[in-house]
Amino acid sequence: MEALEQRILNEGELRPGGILKVDGFLNHRIDAQLSYDMAVELKRLYEGEEINKILTIEASGIAMACMAAYVFGCPLVFAKKSKTKNISSDVWSVEVESFTHGNTNTVVVSKEYLGPEDKVLIIDDFLATGAALKGLKALVEQAGGTVVGAGIAIEKAFQGGGDELRSAGMRVESLARIASMTDDSIEFVR
Amino acid sequence: MEALEQRILNEGELRPGGILKVDGFLNHRIDAQLSYDMAVELKRLYEGEEINKILTIEASGIAMACMAAYVFGCPLVFAKKSKTKNISSDVWSVEVESFTHGNTNTVVVSKEYLGPEDKVLIIDDFLATGAALKGLKALVEQAGGTVVGAGIAIEKAFQGGGDELRSAGMRVESLARIASMTDDSIEFVR
Repeated sequence: MEALEQRILNEGELRPGGILKVDGFLNHRIDAQLSYDMAVELKRLYEGEEINKILTIEASGIAMACMAAYVFGCPLVFAKKSKTKNISSDVWSVEVESFTHGNTNTVVVSKEYLGPEDKVLIIDDFLATGAALKGLKALVEQAGGTVVGAGIAIEKAFQGGGDELRSAGMRVESLARIASMTDDSIEFVR
Repeated sequence: MEALEQRILNEGELRPGGILKVDGFLNHRIDAQLSYDMAVELKRLYEGEEINKILTIEASGIAMACMAAYVFGCPLVFAKKSKTKNISSDVWSVEVESFTHGNTNTVVVSKEYLGPEDKVLIIDDFLATGAALKGLKALVEQAGGTVVGAGIAIEKAFQGGGDELRSAGMRVESLARIASMTDDSIEFVR
């Protein structure tokens, strides 16, 4: 998606350790019009697919996911990072490693809001190693639901998570795919 | 706002200790169309006011706030709950007590995204004691910005936070105001 790639080139900040900061429009200050436009593009990509639920993980994925839910005309469920180690029996739960924060979170969704009738589009702002996406996919599978695919804003393709999931048969659509990053340049997949 | 009050009456769950669970449409599963409609109602209420930034706090306020940013045509900034006790000098920060979770969080916003030029509408899903709203107001004031007002989905008016802030001169618009709650009934402010 040209508009997103341009924003990344113009406003993204490269940090040591393979970190791309896009706090100016995606992760801290959010350009809501861009979030809406990304949702419309995902709707175009998934045209013809039956989708009745959007699933994301708190916190920074919620804005884009809420716009997607609005555009797709279905509810959004966001998985929560659990504050307790005691997981109740009324939630689906999974362990997810965070590449950015270097820790592991228990991520939960209430069983009330994710079930076998759900045809789910998973939305997230970033895809790198794929840990979050695999975790959300596992939640849908625990619930007996169907993962129709994923809609990602920025995929760091060089970290391999996206292609690993595609090889395993999952549809993954990323609106900007970064082939490589150095300390002062970004190349997109063409 | 009639549609919101109806959803609260039909789907809200009352729990001991003055907890109203609206996980079915506001806090875990989100009705994005309702989020959009609430944003449109806030736009109507604040018609004629100059607003150039929406501010909220992660996580469950983000959906409604992103819709508000879209409808108002301005960026959304969400304050983050800090994971570390060492607060860097490039953020505004404040301590906020959580009524729901019974703990205190350090809440931060990057100085880059909140400054003296900002005319801010603060959005949140709940207003009870007003702790979160006071914290967000304090962040705007640290930045030298102006709080135009607040837009809240559900105010538990009987907990007094909203009226305390109104008495102090702040404009607070709540789309549903609960006058009283028992274990099996809810009365709205009329």
